[in-house]
Amino acid sequence: MQKTISKHSVKSILAKIASNQQQRNFKLDLTEVKKPTHLLPDEYDGIKLVTPERPGPKTKELLERMNKIQDMRAAHFVANFEKSKGNFIVDADDNIILDTFTQISSIPLGYNHPYLIEQFHKDPRYATSFLNRPSLGINPPHNYIDILEESFVRIMPKGMTDVVTLSSGAEANENAYKVAFCRYMQIKRGGKSASKEEMDSCVLNQKPGTPNLSILSFKNSFHGRTLGALTATHSKAIHKVDFPSFNWPVCDFPQLKYPLEQYEAENKKEMDRVLEQVEKTIKLSHSPNSPWGEVAGLVVEPIQSEGGDKHAMPYFFRELRRITKENNVAFICDEVQTGGGATGKFWAHQYWDLGENGPDIVCFSKKLQAAGIFHRPEFKIDLPYRIFNTWLGDYTRALQLGAIIDVIERDHLLDLVNETGAYMMKHLTELSKRYPGKIDNVRGAGTFIAFESNKLPELMKQMLHRGVEVGSCGTNTIRLRPMLTFHQWHANIFLQNLNETLEKL
Amino acid sequence: MQKTISKHSVKSILAKIASNQQQRNFKLDLTEVKKPTHLLPDEYDGIKLVTPERPGPKTKELLERMNKIQDMRAAHFVANFEKSKGNFIVDADDNIILDTFTQISSIPLGYNHPYLIEQFHKDPRYATSFLNRPSLGINPPHNYIDILEESFVRIMPKGMTDVVTLSSGAEANENAYKVAFCRYMQIKRGGKSASKEEMDSCVLNQKPGTPNLSILSFKNSFHGRTLGALTATHSKAIHKVDFPSFNWPVCDFPQLKYPLEQYEAENKKEMDRVLEQVEKTIKLSHSPNSPWGEVAGLVVEPIQSEGGDKHAMPYFFRELRRITKENNVAFICDEVQTGGGATGKFWAHQYWDLGENGPDIVCFSKKLQAAGIFHRPEFKIDLPYRIFNTWLGDYTRALQLGAIIDVIERDHLLDLVNETGAYMMKHLTELSKRYPGKIDNVRGAGTFIAFESNKLPELMKQMLHRGVEVGSCGTNTIRLRPMLTFHQWHANIFLQNLNETLEKL
Repeated sequence: MQKTISKHSVKSILAKIASNQQQRNFKLDLTEVKKPTHLLPDEYDGIKLVTPERPGPKTKELLERMNKIQDMRAAHFVANFEKSKGNFIVDADDNIILDTFTQISSIPLGYNHPYLIEQFHKDPRYATSFLNRPSLGINPPHNYIDILEESFVRIMPKGMTDVVTLSSGAEANENAYKVAFCRYMQIKRGGKSASKEEMDSCVLNQKPGTPNLSILSFKNSFHGRTLGALTATHSKAIHKVDFPSFNWPVCDFPQLKYPLEQYEAENKKEMDRVLEQVEKTIKLSHSPNSPWGEVAGLVVEPIQSEGGDKHAMPYFFRELRRITKENNVAFICDEVQTGGGATGKFWAHQYWDLGENGPDIVCFSKKLQAAGIFHRPEFKIDLPYRIFNTWLGDYTRALQLGAIIDVIERDHLLDLVNETGAYMMKHLTELSKRYPGKIDNVRGAGTFIAFESNKLPELMKQMLHRGVEVGSCGTNTIRLRPMLTFHQWHANIFLQNLNETLEKL
Repeated sequence: MQKTISKHSVKSILAKIASNQQQRNFKLDLTEVKKPTHLLPDEYDGIKLVTPERPGPKTKELLERMNKIQDMRAAHFVANFEKSKGNFIVDADDNIILDTFTQISSIPLGYNHPYLIEQFHKDPRYATSFLNRPSLGINPPHNYIDILEESFVRIMPKGMTDVVTLSSGAEANENAYKVAFCRYMQIKRGGKSASKEEMDSCVLNQKPGTPNLSILSFKNSFHGRTLGALTATHSKAIHKVDFPSFNWPVCDFPQLKYPLEQYEAENKKEMDRVLEQVEKTIKLSHSPNSPWGEVAGLVVEPIQSEGGDKHAMPYFFRELRRITKENNVAFICDEVQTGGGATGKFWAHQYWDLGENGPDIVCFSKKLQAAGIFHRPEFKIDLPYRIFNTWLGDYTRALQLGAIIDVIERDHLLDLVNETGAYMMKHLTELSKRYPGKIDNVRGAGTFIAFESNKLPELMKQMLHRGVEVGSCGTNTIRLRPMLTFHQWHANIFLQNLNETLEKL
C-alpha cells in the first residue's frame, strides 16, 4: 500500500537532498602538485584496491596460520614488504595502501627507501656488524668511533655528551631511570660511590643499597611495557592490568584547549596548576613523610602520544626544567615517538628553546631504528658495568641511523615536514569547521598531527576500506604519523579520502 | 760481597730446580688432531701475537676516543670483526686471539661463519626485513609463517606452542614475568578476564587492578638489568646498587659439591633443604600474612651463569616443577645463557627428563641472536595487546636463527659440543689434580664448563697475554663459553696455554 506524502514531508525531503548534494559537492581547496619522484623515484601512483574488503582472503588465511605460533590477534593486516614502496604499504592481497601510521610511527623514510637499500648492499659494515654482533661494552669494533660520529654524534641534543645504546624504547626508559637513580644517590652521598654496606645489602634487595626511589610520571603517559617503564605508563588499562608496579607518584598532565595560543590565558592557568602539583609532589617525596619513593627523576613526553596526542606549551616544559633542577631531580625527556624529525624539528624538545639547558636525559628509539639514551656530562656514571648489558643494542642499526640522517639532510626533509604539516593543518582545520564532532581539536607540530572524532572506529574502518591506514590513540583521537617523505601529493590523497569519508559518516 | 751458601741451601735450591723442571716437563696427554677445516674452512692456524701487551697501542687509542662518546671503561679490547674468523677474534692491533668467551656467550658458530655470510647475501629477505622493520604484532610480513617455521618452530621446547619475540634477554624475562602474572590472576578470577574495577584502577597503579604479585628468584641468579628482571637478579652488587626493587622473595640456590654424582647424598640433602624453603616461601606468600607479593612465578637458570656457574641436579628442577605446579606458580626457565646448544643439548632443561611436562615459560636470547619466550598453551593470554610492544624483536634475527639451526644440524654441532666437552673435562680434571687451588671444582655440561681458581685475575691476565680470551663469573670462577664449533683442535690450544699458565702462576 502506497504511503501518502504530505507537502511538508516533500519539502523536508527536498531540503535534505539539497543539503546532501551540497555536502557531496564540498571540495577542499587543495593545491595540485606533481608526484615527488625526486624524493622517492619508484613510488606507486596512488592507492589501488583489488579485494572488496580489508582484511582480504589471503591476509585472513595467513593471520590464522601465524596465530597458532605467535599471537597475531592485534594484527589488522599482513604486509608484503617486498612490494611496499615509500608511503605505500602493500598487503598480502596486493592492495596498495597509503600508510600514515608507519609501523606505530617507526618507519622514517618510507618502505624500501632506495638510499637505504643502496647503503645496505654497498657498505660491507652491514654484514660484518650484523653477523658478528658484539658485546659492545667489552669488545667494541675498531671502526665504532666512525660509526658513532656518522650516527649519534650528528643528532646529539645540545648540552649532551654521552650516548648509551640499547635495544628498544622500553630499555631506553629503564636505563634513563637507572642513570637518574645513580646520579641522585651520588648527590645524596656528597659525590661518593656506594659504601660497603650499600654494596652488601643491595644484592638481596635490602636497604640501604636498594633505596626507595621513584620516577615521577604523568597521567596518560606512555613509556614502555617492561615493569619499570610500565609503572610510569598510564595511557591504557590493557597495558597495565594484573601487573605489579612500583610505588611511584603520578601527576596530572595539563588538559589544554586547542589551538593552544587562542586559549593562552586559560591554558597557562591549567599548566600552573599542574606545575604546582609537580613541585609539591617532589618536595613531599623528599620529606620523611613521603607516601612514595623519593623522586629521583621526572619523565615526560614532549607530546603525549599513546595517551591521545596531548600537547602542552613550551612554558610548561621550561618550568619543569626549573623545578627539576632546583630539586636535584633528573629531567628525562622521552622522545621515543617524537624524536627523529616528524614534529618539524629533529627533537621535539627543541621547541622549548632551552638551548644548552635542556633535559638531562633523552630517550630515543622508533624512527631512529637504533634505540638508547643521551645524557648530560654530569650524569656520567661513577663506575663501569653499572649501566650495561650483553649487547647494548645492535650497532647495525647505528649504521642505518647514519644513512637515515644522510637522507634527512640531503633531501631537506625537516623543511618538507614543516611544509606538508602546515598544509595538512590548514585543510584539517577547514574540515573541522565543516564537520564538527566528526573532526575536532586539530593540533600538531610538523606532520605529527592529531584530531578527535566522535566516530572514531567507523572513521578508521572507512579510511582503511578506501585504502588509507590511520592510527588512533587515547580514547577518541586519530594520530597521523606519516613518513618524513610525506609530501603535499600524499597529503592530497589523504585529505580527499578523509573529506569523502567524513561526508558519509 | 759473595754470600756463603750452606749445604742445606744448596740442597734446597737443587730440589726446587728439579721440581720446577718436573713441573715444566708436565705434559697433558693431548690427542693430536687436524685443524677442522670441514667446520670452518678459512680459520687461522692458531694464536698470533704482534704487540707485546694487550691492550696494544691502537686499542688504547681507540678506547680513549670512543669513551668520550660512549662508556667503554669495561672494554678490555677492541675487535676487528672484519678479520676475525671462527674461534679467533682479531684485535685492533692485529693480535689473533682464541676466544672462549664469545661476546659474553652470544656468538653461536664463530666469527664470519661462511654459511651465515652466504645466506645474508643470497637471501633477499635479510635486506627487506632489516630495512622495513615492522611492528610485528599489527603488520606481520606475508612470509612470516615461513620464517617462524624455519626458526622458532624447529627449536620449540617440548610441550610448548607459542613464541613471543622480543629484543633482549632482559625483555624476555620481563615478559615471562608478565605472562606469569596474567595467568595467575586469570586462575584467581576463575578463568575470567579483568573486571571493570580492575581495569579502572590499574591505570594509576592502584589495587585491585595493580595486584601485589611477585616472582620468586634464587640467590646468585642473573636475569637481566631492567628493573623487573633486576629485582630477580642477585649475582653482583655492581649491577644492583642504588636501584629500587620490588618486594619479591629470594631463596637460596643449592650449594652443591662437585663432581655432583660423587657427593650425591650430601647434595640431595642440600637440595631438599632449598626445596623446602621454596615451598614454604610460596605458601607463605599466598597467605594473608605474606611479607612479599604473592608468588605468581618462579624463575631459575638451569646453570647459574653470571653468579658463578653453579649447577644443581635434575632432581632439584623436577621438584621445582612439582612444587610450582601444585601451587599455580609459573615455572620460568631462563635459558638466555644456557640455550642454543653449548650444554650439549639445545636446551639445558632437556637434561631434567621432564618430557612434555617441562617448564611453563622458557626465556631465550644470546646464542640464538633472536630473543623472546616460549610458553605452554595454557599460558595463552586472554586478550590481545597485553603482551605487546612496537617491534616485538627484530625478525631479521629470526632469519639468522634459521641459518644457525641449519649449521647446527648440518655439522652435527651438538655431537661436537659433547665430544669436545668430554675431552676438555678430562684434561681440566687432570689439571685440577696437578694444580689444586689454582684450578678446582671443574664442572660442566657440553663445553659449558667452569672451574674455580684462587688466582683468578692473574690467570685471566696471563691467558690474555698468551692470546686466549677467557671470561669469569661469580667471585672466583672461570667460565668457558666457546662457540659451538670449538673442536679438540681448539681445545688443545686452550689446554696447552692453560697448563703453561698454571705452572707459572
